[in-house]
Amino acid sequence: MIAPLDSVHIRALKNIVGEENCYDDTAHRIAYCYDATRERYEPQAVVYPRDERDVSEVLKYCNTHKIAVIPRGAGSGFTGGALPANGGIVLALEKYFNQILEIDEKNLIARVQPGVVNKHFQNEVEKRGLFYPPDPASQEYSTLGGNVSENAGGMRAAKYGITKDYVMALRAVLPNGDIIKAGKKTIKDVAGYNIAGILIASEGTLAVITEITLKLIAKPKLRQSAMGVFATINDAMNAVYKTMASGITPVAMEFLDNLSICAVEERFSKGLPTNAGAILITQVDGDMQEVLDYQLAQLEQKFKENGCIDFKKAKNTQEEEDLWFARRNASQSITIYGKKKLNEDITVPRSRLPELLEHINRLSQQYDFKIPCFGHTGDGNVHTNVMVPNPDDPEELARGYACIEEIFKVAVDLEGTLSGEHGIGLAKAPFMPLAFSEEEMNLFRVIKHAFDPNNILNPGKMGL
Amino acid sequence: MIAPLDSVHIRALKNIVGEENCYDDTAHRIAYCYDATRERYEPQAVVYPRDERDVSEVLKYCNTHKIAVIPRGAGSGFTGGALPANGGIVLALEKYFNQILEIDEKNLIARVQPGVVNKHFQNEVEKRGLFYPPDPASQEYSTLGGNVSENAGGMRAAKYGITKDYVMALRAVLPNGDIIKAGKKTIKDVAGYNIAGILIASEGTLAVITEITLKLIAKPKLRQSAMGVFATINDAMNAVYKTMASGITPVAMEFLDNLSICAVEERFSKGLPTNAGAILITQVDGDMQEVLDYQLAQLEQKFKENGCIDFKKAKNTQEEEDLWFARRNASQSITIYGKKKLNEDITVPRSRLPELLEHINRLSQQYDFKIPCFGHTGDGNVHTNVMVPNPDDPEELARGYACIEEIFKVAVDLEGTLSGEHGIGLAKAPFMPLAFSEEEMNLFRVIKHAFDPNNILNPGKMGL
Repeated sequence: MIAPLDSVHIRALKNIVGEENCYDDTAHRIAYCYDATRERYEPQAVVYPRDERDVSEVLKYCNTHKIAVIPRGAGSGFTGGALPANGGIVLALEKYFNQILEIDEKNLIARVQPGVVNKHFQNEVEKRGLFYPPDPASQEYSTLGGNVSENAGGMRAAKYGITKDYVMALRAVLPNGDIIKAGKKTIKDVAGYNIAGILIASEGTLAVITEITLKLIAKPKLRQSAMGVFATINDAMNAVYKTMASGITPVAMEFLDNLSICAVEERFSKGLPTNAGAILITQVDGDMQEVLDYQLAQLEQKFKENGCIDFKKAKNTQEEEDLWFARRNASQSITIYGKKKLNEDITVPRSRLPELLEHINRLSQQYDFKIPCFGHTGDGNVHTNVMVPNPDDPEELARGYACIEEIFKVAVDLEGTLSGEHGIGLAKAPFMPLAFSEEEMNLFRVIKHAFDPNNILNPGKMGL
Repeated sequence: MIAPLDSVHIRALKNIVGEENCYDDTAHRIAYCYDATRERYEPQAVVYPRDERDVSEVLKYCNTHKIAVIPRGAGSGFTGGALPANGGIVLALEKYFNQILEIDEKNLIARVQPGVVNKHFQNEVEKRGLFYPPDPASQEYSTLGGNVSENAGGMRAAKYGITKDYVMALRAVLPNGDIIKAGKKTIKDVAGYNIAGILIASEGTLAVITEITLKLIAKPKLRQSAMGVFATINDAMNAVYKTMASGITPVAMEFLDNLSICAVEERFSKGLPTNAGAILITQVDGDMQEVLDYQLAQLEQKFKENGCIDFKKAKNTQEEEDLWFARRNASQSITIYGKKKLNEDITVPRSRLPELLEHINRLSQQYDFKIPCFGHTGDGNVHTNVMVPNPDDPEELARGYACIEEIFKVAVDLEGTLSGEHGIGLAKAPFMPLAFSEEEMNLFRVIKHAFDPNNILNPGKMGL
């Protein structure tokens, strides 16, 4: 445990943000010590900046005094990105940076503060007939600032892309306190370096984002879902990439493997096909029923060409919800297989999905763990969950982590990535050298140093 | 004029790339002294690297000896990005880096070398039923490496976005010779900083791109165009943003103002409406005729709600080509208004288009120049052309440049950008302080220095 901040620093920080916006008591330190990992690190203080100028002044002060600053939205990350692993202050943005500043219906653009919750924003734009596609599983509580910092994905990425595809501009504060704008409210803008591009997915290590300009699209008027049942996981994975390669662009193309299906069925008795090797749950959208029918017919044909033994279209809202129930409840249901879940979000080019799942099956046998898998196969993003029944047994837990490392190696060998959407943070930092050469890691360090020469912003993350 | 390179350096470079791939004779220096601006700067030598290792060795050598290196594709840029304004060697990539390495139909991805010509690549992927949307006007000769370095746009950006939306990964060589990969063949990838993101649009100032991985999509089976005639430019500009805001997503939404229409008509006598304030030429696409009909009906309705006095749909290929003839020939036709064309590609949020065109009309009167405008209104990108009748008159030319500076100021005031697709290079470098604060310019310099501490890569560009 790291000692509290010197009282002189606390005084100085209170002078910047006001008495009521800076705390170093135990209650606040505990309240901001967690995220969605099971790791816990207490900050030395919690600071709530009221506006961009406060952010600038706090950073300037901390930069001068070499105090670590950890920007934080909802603290819902899966990789420890918002955890003060090396002490320092948490810069908590949910209190004052939670406003939707503008929904510009003339240009299909919105400006928001980083503490706005994703789903709240989606709801507000949908009221106006507009649509913000990125839908991370955490959408009910994660913030748009966190989404940008981790470049969050979601189910709709197969058709609509991920957070970075919607960020048009950012305002941000550099570690030295400089306030910058990056990007424009224009689709085309090629003046100057793409600073917004490098801030996206930088996990709060380069700058504190204070405002986000997002692209919106018109909300599709209609959507419809369908489920394909496959005898084997291999059939399902072949169906995924062959369907997507044929040019159909479903909104989502999600899968559950047999273990995931059985887990949901055991907990909720929904009549799922527990003898199936895998199911694919997919959705199409558009403005005309003819378009939906056409896409669904194509999906059915492609699925059946690739071993689909049952194809079921949702006929109404209830059936629609039933189809998605299994997918939405997979993550919590698979806990039947072990107390501790080592979950990763590796991603491979879609055509490598069949090989990936074969390797995972092999590793499951070799390391003697159940590894239920589900996720966003439409974009090659597979949530792999190594279930450790007795995590209190150090040998067993170590074996679990060894298995995870093998899974990372397989992903990289298949031209994939360590993380499709969760980021690196602390949790995956040790594995960065699996994916990046020394030259590449060095370039990351050079960039980090250029933005943050005193290493005050979220230090120790991303393996840097 | 800068002296030739020391013969010791020429010898050393020849030792790296071979005798036949390094020249400092006058013929080669003249052959590589130009681009699509009228500026001319001779390089001190021209070097043709045969492969990525050559690029690495050349950069390592030049970095050690502080010799400037200017990467070059086709030299078709509009802003001097490939011109050796401060001497140094041109690293010419068109000779050996012109191969399409892979068209991965399973994953809808291609890998290319930077010297591949855009249109050649489009043709090759279209043969396979695939589609690469970015279509800069230079597509017949500009290279994909140049397109990435300038983040090229084009007519189809309104629906399909620009080059950066298709770059999945890059290989590149840093000024110190380090070879790096950035990005993956996966839609989702959030491991490490987004290096590919910052290299796009960096105009060859940060690294030499040696390989590009591009996203492809399925080629839409059908397309159809239409033209709307408007009595006033203001009606047309209002129609653009209101149509786009209504959620219709035409592939393109191009405009010609009255001066541009008249210029094309004077040169080609195509029966264009020379009394119109502006015309909008638009195209929709899709896989079903019903979808096209629906979109065209919506376009017609929205146009007519906003003052469209004539709406004409193309009924066949010939009519399709006739509609686009005016747009394609606008740039060359407007030269009837003046010997020298000061052309810029400012971009504003679409809803500011009416104001922008009003300002341009005012500046045209104030500075006494004809300023024909045309371009990509679907994304707010307007090609403004200040036509200078007697550029040999220094006063008149200076007045032309003063007018351009006013146009830039207007664009920035309307939340727009100096450049939608041409980049900054040399031509717009003096105007960077109009668009960026000292803090932002400083950040650009810090990033440049981090990648290139000896400032050898394309020095003096982008106002850095």
